[in-house]
Amino acid sequence: MELKSKPSTKIGIIGLGLIGGSLGLDLQKLGYTVYGITHREETAKRARERKLAQIISTNTEVLKNCSIIFIALPLKQLLNPTSDLINAIPKNAVITDVGSVKVPILDTWKKLHPRFIASHPMTGTEEFGVNAGQHNLFKDKPWVVTPDEETDQKALEKIRRISLSLGCQWVSTEAHIHDEAVSLISHLPVFISAALLNTLDTDVNPSVYSLAKRIASSGFADTSRVGGGNPDLGVSMAKYNKENLMKSLGSYRHSLDIFEKYLLEEDWKKIENILMTTQTGRHNFISQTTN
Amino acid sequence: MELKSKPSTKIGIIGLGLIGGSLGLDLQKLGYTVYGITHREETAKRARERKLAQIISTNTEVLKNCSIIFIALPLKQLLNPTSDLINAIPKNAVITDVGSVKVPILDTWKKLHPRFIASHPMTGTEEFGVNAGQHNLFKDKPWVVTPDEETDQKALEKIRRISLSLGCQWVSTEAHIHDEAVSLISHLPVFISAALLNTLDTDVNPSVYSLAKRIASSGFADTSRVGGGNPDLGVSMAKYNKENLMKSLGSYRHSLDIFEKYLLEEDWKKIENILMTTQTGRHNFISQTTN
Repeated sequence: MELKSKPSTKIGIIGLGLIGGSLGLDLQKLGYTVYGITHREETAKRARERKLAQIISTNTEVLKNCSIIFIALPLKQLLNPTSDLINAIPKNAVITDVGSVKVPILDTWKKLHPRFIASHPMTGTEEFGVNAGQHNLFKDKPWVVTPDEETDQKALEKIRRISLSLGCQWVSTEAHIHDEAVSLISHLPVFISAALLNTLDTDVNPSVYSLAKRIASSGFADTSRVGGGNPDLGVSMAKYNKENLMKSLGSYRHSLDIFEKYLLEEDWKKIENILMTTQTGRHNFISQTTN
Repeated sequence: MELKSKPSTKIGIIGLGLIGGSLGLDLQKLGYTVYGITHREETAKRARERKLAQIISTNTEVLKNCSIIFIALPLKQLLNPTSDLINAIPKNAVITDVGSVKVPILDTWKKLHPRFIASHPMTGTEEFGVNAGQHNLFKDKPWVVTPDEETDQKALEKIRRISLSLGCQWVSTEAHIHDEAVSLISHLPVFISAALLNTLDTDVNPSVYSLAKRIASSGFADTSRVGGGNPDLGVSMAKYNKENLMKSLGSYRHSLDIFEKYLLEEDWKKIENILMTTQTGRHNFISQTTN
């Protein structure tokens, strides 16, 4: 039997949903010893069956020897941490989160822990919960961090190395820039897509509705996809990135106004010009991997 | 050598773009003799190389013995037919089109030909032109017709049989119901998706734009897909389905207003209720094949 020359780094993951569970699977593969925490025993049992971590418990005591901790909890719990959660985190460990809004999380956690790194690994599927975690979820995806002048640079470097070993692209920016960008490319699409679905449910006569349902195809499916997603996530975006989302919706409304104006004026040339710009714009904007 | 017991039906296709070219490929496979018309000799040459029809010409004279004619031209040409086009169509042939708006086409063509059937095969790819036609484009897709009380029932039956042999689902409805339904599930998505792309191009500061571009992922790619499509198609939708599109945009704006109202009031429960409805709504609305 071969003995390792030194014990492997112990990593804790709090929450074994889509992101936490996927981290657990990949980090074990990379040779780390992973300690996973779930809230309920039932979830812990399923997480053990799925081997999302080597040690899985509902008791945060098991984290005491971990040197790196990922808090993979929903925004609501990240922003209103219980004292149990705060006390469970070793004072000298490096801590990071996976939340999709960064200004309020950085504000909250930099006061709670000196080695906190604000992270947003930008990946996902439509699945959630203990059955959602999967291998290679992070490969080629951006791992965004939003350090400020008080951020512990050694802690930041540890998170950078792990994110690169997961296959991520490391992106460092300011928290407020992050929150404004995600409001435009992630949160705004959810609401404009949901508004499309809502339009079909209101103001439409039954014959039109019935035909629309029968003939809706890939264009409608694509445009409505994110609006049909997890309502909890949508509410979190609205609640914790409200100011940016209001601003994005305002700009968006202006773009719609322009189309309505030219439509009313029957200015087809101007409509064509905008559509030529959006056609080129999308080609420039969307990377090959996501097109 | 085996001789067929009777000569096969001669079918003409005017325009060998995505829809016309795909019809040509499938109809030949089904045993029909297909005559294809293109506007330019250069396109005819390429269409011959691609074997989009057995006989391909820029001269509409070749259609004179065809008993069924598909006019697979853009809306603009369908709605402003040249006298050459009108004269090229045999008086006793069955005529149909493939346009995405039906009220103005039916109004125009029922006066021009007694055996005209207004059709809208609902299929497509992002490609267009003489290189776009492909086999099996129609399989499992709706072939919508919008007959009225004057429609020739025998002509309608001929188109029905052909559409079924192409693998289509036959859907018969009224032209105004069709135009309202496509404005909701096809034309409205193009404009709300283009408005999203336009929002990114305006009012956004350079750091946010640059980060947004770097981190945009599948959610943004899906929601912006149809807004980055062919500008000519978008202009045609606006131009020839203007009233319905104005109405759809009005309803859509109302759905957005509701989100903005609840966001401003921080009524998270009401936002959650709408997102729960849209989540269920999408599941009911989108068929398995397009999800």
